[in-house]
Amino acid sequence: MSDRYLAFANSAAGRRLLRALGLPTPVRLERWAAGHARVLDGALLLAGDGDLLASVLGFAHRLSGERYAERPDRLGLPCWKLAEGPRLKALVFDASGLNRFEQLSALRACFQPALKGLGKCPRLVLLGRPPESLEDPQAASVQRALEGFSRSLGKEVRRGGCVQLLYVAAGAEPQLEGALRFFLSPKSAYVSGQVLRLAPCTAQVKDWTRPLAGKQALITGASRGIGAAIAETLARDGAEVVLLDVPAAEDALAALAARFGGRAVTLDIRSEDAPHRLVEALPDGIDILVHNAGITRDKTLAKMSEAQWDAVIEVNLQAPQRLTQALLHANKLREQARVVLIASISGIAGNPGQSNYATSKAGLIGLAQAWAPALGERGISINAVAPGFIETQMTAAMPLALREAGRRMNALGQGGLPQDVAEAVAWFAQPGSGAVSGQVLRVCGQSLLGA
Amino acid sequence: MSDRYLAFANSAAGRRLLRALGLPTPVRLERWAAGHARVLDGALLLAGDGDLLASVLGFAHRLSGERYAERPDRLGLPCWKLAEGPRLKALVFDASGLNRFEQLSALRACFQPALKGLGKCPRLVLLGRPPESLEDPQAASVQRALEGFSRSLGKEVRRGGCVQLLYVAAGAEPQLEGALRFFLSPKSAYVSGQVLRLAPCTAQVKDWTRPLAGKQALITGASRGIGAAIAETLARDGAEVVLLDVPAAEDALAALAARFGGRAVTLDIRSEDAPHRLVEALPDGIDILVHNAGITRDKTLAKMSEAQWDAVIEVNLQAPQRLTQALLHANKLREQARVVLIASISGIAGNPGQSNYATSKAGLIGLAQAWAPALGERGISINAVAPGFIETQMTAAMPLALREAGRRMNALGQGGLPQDVAEAVAWFAQPGSGAVSGQVLRVCGQSLLGA
Repeated sequence: MSDRYLAFANSAAGRRLLRALGLPTPVRLERWAAGHARVLDGALLLAGDGDLLASVLGFAHRLSGERYAERPDRLGLPCWKLAEGPRLKALVFDASGLNRFEQLSALRACFQPALKGLGKCPRLVLLGRPPESLEDPQAASVQRALEGFSRSLGKEVRRGGCVQLLYVAAGAEPQLEGALRFFLSPKSAYVSGQVLRLAPCTAQVKDWTRPLAGKQALITGASRGIGAAIAETLARDGAEVVLLDVPAAEDALAALAARFGGRAVTLDIRSEDAPHRLVEALPDGIDILVHNAGITRDKTLAKMSEAQWDAVIEVNLQAPQRLTQALLHANKLREQARVVLIASISGIAGNPGQSNYATSKAGLIGLAQAWAPALGERGISINAVAPGFIETQMTAAMPLALREAGRRMNALGQGGLPQDVAEAVAWFAQPGSGAVSGQVLRVCGQSLLGA
Repeated sequence: MSDRYLAFANSAAGRRLLRALGLPTPVRLERWAAGHARVLDGALLLAGDGDLLASVLGFAHRLSGERYAERPDRLGLPCWKLAEGPRLKALVFDASGLNRFEQLSALRACFQPALKGLGKCPRLVLLGRPPESLEDPQAASVQRALEGFSRSLGKEVRRGGCVQLLYVAAGAEPQLEGALRFFLSPKSAYVSGQVLRLAPCTAQVKDWTRPLAGKQALITGASRGIGAAIAETLARDGAEVVLLDVPAAEDALAALAARFGGRAVTLDIRSEDAPHRLVEALPDGIDILVHNAGITRDKTLAKMSEAQWDAVIEVNLQAPQRLTQALLHANKLREQARVVLIASISGIAGNPGQSNYATSKAGLIGLAQAWAPALGERGISINAVAPGFIETQMTAAMPLALREAGRRMNALGQGGLPQDVAEAVAWFAQPGSGAVSGQVLRVCGQSLLGA
């Protein structure tokens, strides 16, 4: 999990070089590290007059470790501040009570003064109700309008700040704590401009210091990069991890498995007997399944060989489907299991030179959407995480100019780290994250690219 | 409808300047002009082995004016070519029969050779089935994967080419002709990378040379720019147009109305009595309602005044809702009416300095989504058209560097014209376009920006 680019960019020589190139120095993002006792270090402001704020007030002191003081006079809105401090670390605005267009002005009224008092890497979250759940068209439109606001704010906030919008269905309020523990903490350092829906879910995390305790996790493509980071992060959160990769990666895999107290399984997921062998390798079944293994074979379509097309579809799309199907048939996915597919913003926006890769990644999003209803009946969730530009061996091999452009084309002005993807997966893997299913979470620093 | 930038860019001096700046000369897009007798001039290839191709073969000769010749041996796929010629003008690939991952290779097999033989401004359309309508998760994922492919292809095709993906529900096949008459013709010159769903619809165009004959249309903000182009285009297609704008625009409005044989109504849509006055002004009701009036008051949220916020929300979002509501209550929206809301890619991706505008435009998308089911019971459709960078007086006022960047950040490498937005509205206004409702069509040259 190297942070070398940012270390360089923030060094004296690096700053000089970036200045000469006319590029701003990216903010060094705060990330979760061992020893972090609190979800957030600093002042948290809660505002808005919807029904969701009461739920948040019920657990907010656990996030900041402070009692809250009511400040009902501020902005004319109900408003609480947790932990004193000159600058705000986080803001949760409950917009769920807004149902007339003129009430949207509360957004300006709340965020304008708040923007002036934000600290470094501030975390901003808007809460709303799913527009499709509202009968009144105006109320639905008001809630839908929040998307335009939050995505604009994400592009304005700077200082490494992130903005999300959570649509909370009636009955899903108990799952807000898990979601805010992710979105208000440095674990979501590289996640911004995202919109997610929370639905009711019966499972719940028991111990927030080890939210995955007692869970068995399988991660494919685990020998390096994002896969290794996922294995490490799931293990940190208490899961027993099974690391899977191709036979050629056996040594690296065994070393990682030993480090995380896990188990290594070598297997070519393209092989005919892979599903059978995987089922055999998991006698007790698993709670967490992360399909991370993926390859690129970039060429414009005009020059792409049949082998290049087929390899990418087989590894990235066909293998996850075959393996999941086999695990389901063999009853190896336990009740309340969490399945996470690693997609890509290429699968959302398309990408020149990656028609095979984008097809495979769009297909993974399709798998999450298609499987979610049936799996939901067993309490199993399935979601896709779509990374943007992540600093890995894969991206390090890109030509410099393309790499620098890729890094810069997002609201945070920098690439993400494998850890950022891993933290999103770890959140999706939690029991309470059954509240989210059939959805896509981008880990892209609010990349400008999209559809 | 000025095309001055492209005329300059394609002049000797313009080419020299662009070359000096390291910018490619954008392709001069073919656009629909009076006298166009055919939907497309050139060869049309139909390929694929799904159920939809039979429907297309039933009317394809009307699009190209030619009989087709079967070429069943090409690529091993059923394949027909209409009109001979050295280069392909258009390609329709029916992917609806693909339901296994390995069959996705047909995309490469078909498009790779086709790409080499494309003419200028080629029109490519993929047909599929709505993933959410399919029971088999693998089949749903295959259909969903087409999105990644079509969006990548749109970024690779060049030469002014456009690529769309149409998901056609069972029973919606009769509406393919109207859709392809738009997407295979120069009317969709600046529409690319789009994904739309067609549902069954009982209405149908009777005379393709005047598809809006006998229809009454109201266009707000009609005195200039995009609004004027919409009025002109709807009139061209046979509609009787009512042009609405503020009293200050009375002279321009009257001149335009006279030119299109329409009627001018001056009205401040923000005023208290606007709904009442509008109902009075439309004794016979209307078939087509286009909410085009919109304003910008750009400022970062930190500096935005209450007045700037409120004005944009009132004009762009509140007024369309109030006016539509009043027309519905007064029974002035006829059966099978078509409502079109002009949104913006700002409402999709968010935009720094436009939090008010993006909120209002996301809210319009929300209105289309929220209203579609109830209006559908009366055969009324409601959709949003989201323009990207369009060459208007509004964008001409932008600083040069920002303007040039805005123009370039899309797969076609140039800004669109008001006519491009107008053509999309005119298609949505057709009787058969009731097949589409609650959706968003971007007219943005496949802008790189998105969510």
